[in-house]
Amino acid sequence: MKNGITEKPDDWDKVISKLVFKKEYVRGLYRLGHFRHVLVIFGFHRMRRTLLRVHPRRDLSLGEVGVFATRSPTRPNRLGLTRVRLVGVRKNVVTVEGLDAFDGSPVYDVKPPEDEIDYFNRQARRKSR
Amino acid sequence: MKNGITEKPDDWDKVISKLVFKKEYVRGLYRLGHFRHVLVIFGFHRMRRTLLRVHPRRDLSLGEVGVFATRSPTRPNRLGLTRVRLVGVRKNVVTVEGLDAFDGSPVYDVKPPEDEIDYFNRQARRKSR
Repeated sequence: MKNGITEKPDDWDKVISKLVFKKEYVRGLYRLGHFRHVLVIFGFHRMRRTLLRVHPRRDLSLGEVGVFATRSPTRPNRLGLTRVRLVGVRKNVVTVEGLDAFDGSPVYDVKPPEDEIDYFNRQARRKSR
Repeated sequence: MKNGITEKPDDWDKVISKLVFKKEYVRGLYRLGHFRHVLVIFGFHRMRRTLLRVHPRRDLSLGEVGVFATRSPTRPNRLGLTRVRLVGVRKNVVTVEGLDAFDGSPVYDVKPPEDEIDYFNRQARRKSR
């Protein structure tokens, strides 16, 4: 994944990232562009610490909770999951907005959000008539 | 993961599954039980085929789309992601309802759903007063 982000930005929401797929997977991206959002499963590849207890949102007033009760990157598996806005799909590159991952993060999967799948099917039906 | 399901059931919604964590991760499950649902990232470990184009929901009338535009298990990475109802957490076992995975599927992560995190924080604040 490429986005040029190497330091934590003030706001991830406007960060544009390019998810670069292997050329052999281009066929698997067909019609992904019909969705408005996608779920991205990625790796927190720069994280070195594992913390099994964390303060949610780094807010010390909240008290510690287990890392699996949060989205914290200090989880043992280093897996991140974020719903992002889909900007576009061109050949083997999926461009998204709002992915909270540093430049070079591995991307493991892209999935359509459940709440947009009906919309997508309606589109598919309409076009197939 | 244990649920005793070895053949596809009529309905996954009522299937109860026990996600068994390594004992060393028990601390990481603290307070997970406050959520009503969790997102489970797991592996489609019995799938042998990779299909880059599929008919969504196996509905032939819809036409083929890329596998990344679906939730199909025939994706190259074999990653599944499902929002399930959280039944309970006891020691290293997280019991959930509605996970569409066969017995023995590897579980890679459990995360709280974004739309329940505010609820959770309110609970934490209330209890800390």
